[in-house]
Amino acid sequence: MPYTYEYPRPSVTVDCVIFGLQESTQLKVLLIQRAHEPFKDAWALPGGFVDMDEDLETAALRELEEETGVRDVFIEQLYSFGQPTRDPRGRVISIAYYALVNLAQHPVKAASDAKTVKWFDVNKLPPLAFDHNEIMEMAINRLQAKVRYQPIGFELLPEKFTLTQLQKLYETILGVEQPLNKRNFRTRILDMGVLKEVGRQEGVAHRPAKLYSFDKDKYEELAKSKYKDLIKRGVDFEI
Amino acid sequence: MPYTYEYPRPSVTVDCVIFGLQESTQLKVLLIQRAHEPFKDAWALPGGFVDMDEDLETAALRELEEETGVRDVFIEQLYSFGQPTRDPRGRVISIAYYALVNLAQHPVKAASDAKTVKWFDVNKLPPLAFDHNEIMEMAINRLQAKVRYQPIGFELLPEKFTLTQLQKLYETILGVEQPLNKRNFRTRILDMGVLKEVGRQEGVAHRPAKLYSFDKDKYEELAKSKYKDLIKRGVDFEI
Repeated sequence: MPYTYEYPRPSVTVDCVIFGLQESTQLKVLLIQRAHEPFKDAWALPGGFVDMDEDLETAALRELEEETGVRDVFIEQLYSFGQPTRDPRGRVISIAYYALVNLAQHPVKAASDAKTVKWFDVNKLPPLAFDHNEIMEMAINRLQAKVRYQPIGFELLPEKFTLTQLQKLYETILGVEQPLNKRNFRTRILDMGVLKEVGRQEGVAHRPAKLYSFDKDKYEELAKSKYKDLIKRGVDFEI
Repeated sequence: MPYTYEYPRPSVTVDCVIFGLQESTQLKVLLIQRAHEPFKDAWALPGGFVDMDEDLETAALRELEEETGVRDVFIEQLYSFGQPTRDPRGRVISIAYYALVNLAQHPVKAASDAKTVKWFDVNKLPPLAFDHNEIMEMAINRLQAKVRYQPIGFELLPEKFTLTQLQKLYETILGVEQPLNKRNFRTRILDMGVLKEVGRQEGVAHRPAKLYSFDKDKYEELAKSKYKDLIKRGVDFEI
């Protein structure tokens, strides 16, 4: 008899931190109001129990859609939370996922264990159920760290965008109080080598700005070469 | 009745990927030979079932010590693996941790579910039990990505070290076939601003090299300011 069955077992849940950008100027996060105990009526991350025959990521996407109607998002695993007393129902370990989406493309609709579903400004969060404030904090830190070394969020812009639009998007994700230095930002972003010029704005009152699009192939090529070639050449260290 | 109890539950394990540096020139990883089924006699990562009243990290450290004798290591969570058929005993979700240690400071001794314990060259791994080869691959990628933007491994060097020793350490972690470009490496590392000069080598036959030590306070200060000030100034983007 395999000895895994002799042990008492924890429950396992998944939770989703879905960040939504509203017109590149506001960073929001999707919360549900709980329909059941524990923490009935409190705001929480969408999530729930993992079925015995489904992948963790599948479980996260299923719970997200069941509770909020949101689907077709690219989620990534964030971290697993397992402090023994984090859930009053007993031992519950939760694997958290996160994503960044264009809010306008994801209409929401509460169902299942969610009584209400709503986008909250990340700077104006209510107290959350369980340890969800802690999960949220880690997700924000991860998103902000990631934006430093990977071109994320490009798919949230129109296909052709100006550097001003892109900078605004970065400022929103980073939650900076003052605008980033424009010249430095442009130099850094263009140095990445993942933008291509695709013309200029038309029909604007001011001097038309250059339009760019994101070169995904180039990015993937660079991302691969970073690890293979650039690191070999010792040109790619920083803290 | 809280509904968590009505569901069938998965088992939850922890697994540890412990990287060991041997004299800064070889990157090894700690494996155990399994004493029991499933995968009896196969090599595997040290790990085991999470107790109901312990933190995930505590479980990982406990299992590591029980099976290998290794203790007092700083582990970080890597990723959770939950593919439904990854364990022939049934549904087992595993939360993986990783660490980088100085191999010489960690004598090993097999016990508990481990029949043998041994440091393997990361480039010469045997086929591993379960999905442990996949866990290992992710851990190596994470370690190599991390070394790009954080000064890791400094605590594995003597308190005073030369830049040649440090470069060798980086080359070992990155597993590069050719040496990194020396000039670029030095510039980058010194630009980090976390090394302080502490004299020169003594009693060597060649021209004595400068000795450095790692300025931990400076690093922590910088790490904080990165997110607060440097990002604000837009000087810190890269892919």
